[in-house]
Amino acid sequence: MPNNIGRRTWAIAEGYIPPDSPTKSREMLSHETVCILNAGDSAARVEITVYFANREPVGPYTFDVGARRTRHLRFNEFKDPAPIPTNTDFSSVIASNVPIVVQHTRLDSRQAELALLSTIAFPLD
Amino acid sequence: MPNNIGRRTWAIAEGYIPPDSPTKSREMLSHETVCILNAGDSAARVEITVYFANREPVGPYTFDVGARRTRHLRFNEFKDPAPIPTNTDFSSVIASNVPIVVQHTRLDSRQAELALLSTIAFPLD
Amino acid sequence: MPNNIGRRTWAIAEGYIPPDSPTKSREMLSHETVCILNAGDSAARVEITVYFANREPVGPYTFDVGARRTRHLRFNEFKDPAPIPTNTDFSSVIASNVPIVVQHTRLDSRQAELALLSTIAFPLD
Amino acid sequence: MPNNIGRRTWAIAEGYIPPDSPTKSREMLSHETVCILNAGDSAARVEITVYFANREPVGPYTFDVGARRTRHLRFNEFKDPAPIPTNTDFSSVIASNVPIVVQHTRLDSRQAELALLSTIAFPLD
Repeated sequence: MPNNIGRRTWAIAEGYIPPDSPTKSREMLSHETVCILNAGDSAARVEITVYFANREPVGPYTFDVGARRTRHLRFNEFKDPAPIPTNTDFSSVIASNVPIVVQHTRLDSRQAELALLSTIAFPLD
Repeated sequence: MPNNIGRRTWAIAEGYIPPDSPTKSREMLSHETVCILNAGDSAARVEITVYFANREPVGPYTFDVGARRTRHLRFNEFKDPAPIPTNTDFSSVIASNVPIVVQHTRLDSRQAELALLSTIAFPLD
Repeated sequence: MPNNIGRRTWAIAEGYIPPDSPTKSREMLSHETVCILNAGDSAARVEITVYFANREPVGPYTFDVGARRTRHLRFNEFKDPAPIPTNTDFSSVIASNVPIVVQHTRLDSRQAELALLSTIAFPLD
Repeated sequence: MPNNIGRRTWAIAEGYIPPDSPTKSREMLSHETVCILNAGDSAARVEITVYFANREPVGPYTFDVGARRTRHLRFNEFKDPAPIPTNTDFSSVIASNVPIVVQHTRLDSRQAELALLSTIAFPLD
């Protein structure tokens, strides 16, 4: 099994947090997720910058992903330096100090029946 | 954070605007979207050409994406040089003068409950 | 606008035609689609081979995609050399004599409310 | 038709098995799938390692994919060395001794109406 899996920088051009009822369970609440795999033997320090249509980018949002661990981070739970507004178009760039793999997933439960989307992020280097 | 993120030319082989009720809110109306991230420090001039099954391509549709900005453009709102018909198969090529990142998303709300799809576009150069 | 967009060989590991009512309209009937963009100035001759879990591959299914045209081909409409069974796992390889771009989309309307998926295919060469 | 299609190592950063009723048919039960195409003329030996948020990886799960065959493997049916829990974030790395193509698909039928997602996996080498 190779140890050094992935790239250090990724981008996700799509980003959108559906406005939804906060009374739903965390499992079923609408969420916009960046899934990060760190298959290597060193912990990853991940910095995420969020881009908007009409104002300067916000970030970095900083996360640790341990060696041989995955984290599925929800943009709608980001807090520091600032929450990301719902019903607003955004994009993100994910930068890590070690190679990682990044995938983008949304669960949209605004309506009675949920909808899903997912894609590999764009690997930069 | 690298400044020069993405590629100058992208393609999306899938394209389809579901026929839908124009009385819906913009948020919930069926839409076919090209999400563009310009993470660089120069404004992007983006030209989109749309390909069809049975006639010559239409375009370019021209858009500006500011430095460090994202735009999520809806094909169903394209007007110049011509609107794109609904319920018609198409493809698109996205060309920029600076590197960008491109993702394709559809929200289909023809029925009572919406459906979603998304994918990274194909990076050409 | 570059003329020579894409690759000559692509693969789609996922393939599945949901069993559905043939009385539905073509628009809403479940379908498994390979979307092909030929942005170049030469017509493309495309050969698709379909792989199964428990028997030899079937094909090639042959299609022409004109210069500067797109075709969104539905696997559930393939006929020659043989129809593809529904409710059966398959994969496909798409080979062209000129560069093309390939995307995979499914509309699943087995239930009352449709579901969608899409991804860029895997570009080989 | 080229014989040597794909890569030997792939990664899927997203992974999640929706908790669902085991009384549903296999066709409609929620499933998280890794679709593997072996278009080559040699059988593939595939080893899948599964990564979690808070504990060491589990695996390898070992599968054979015959020459010129596809297998659509469901993570929710993995048994040896251990079942994968539902409602738990995970990632996976897929390693093969011959080139393969890998795609990730989920069918989520927790609610009355199913939802779908799919993406090409990340090709490593």
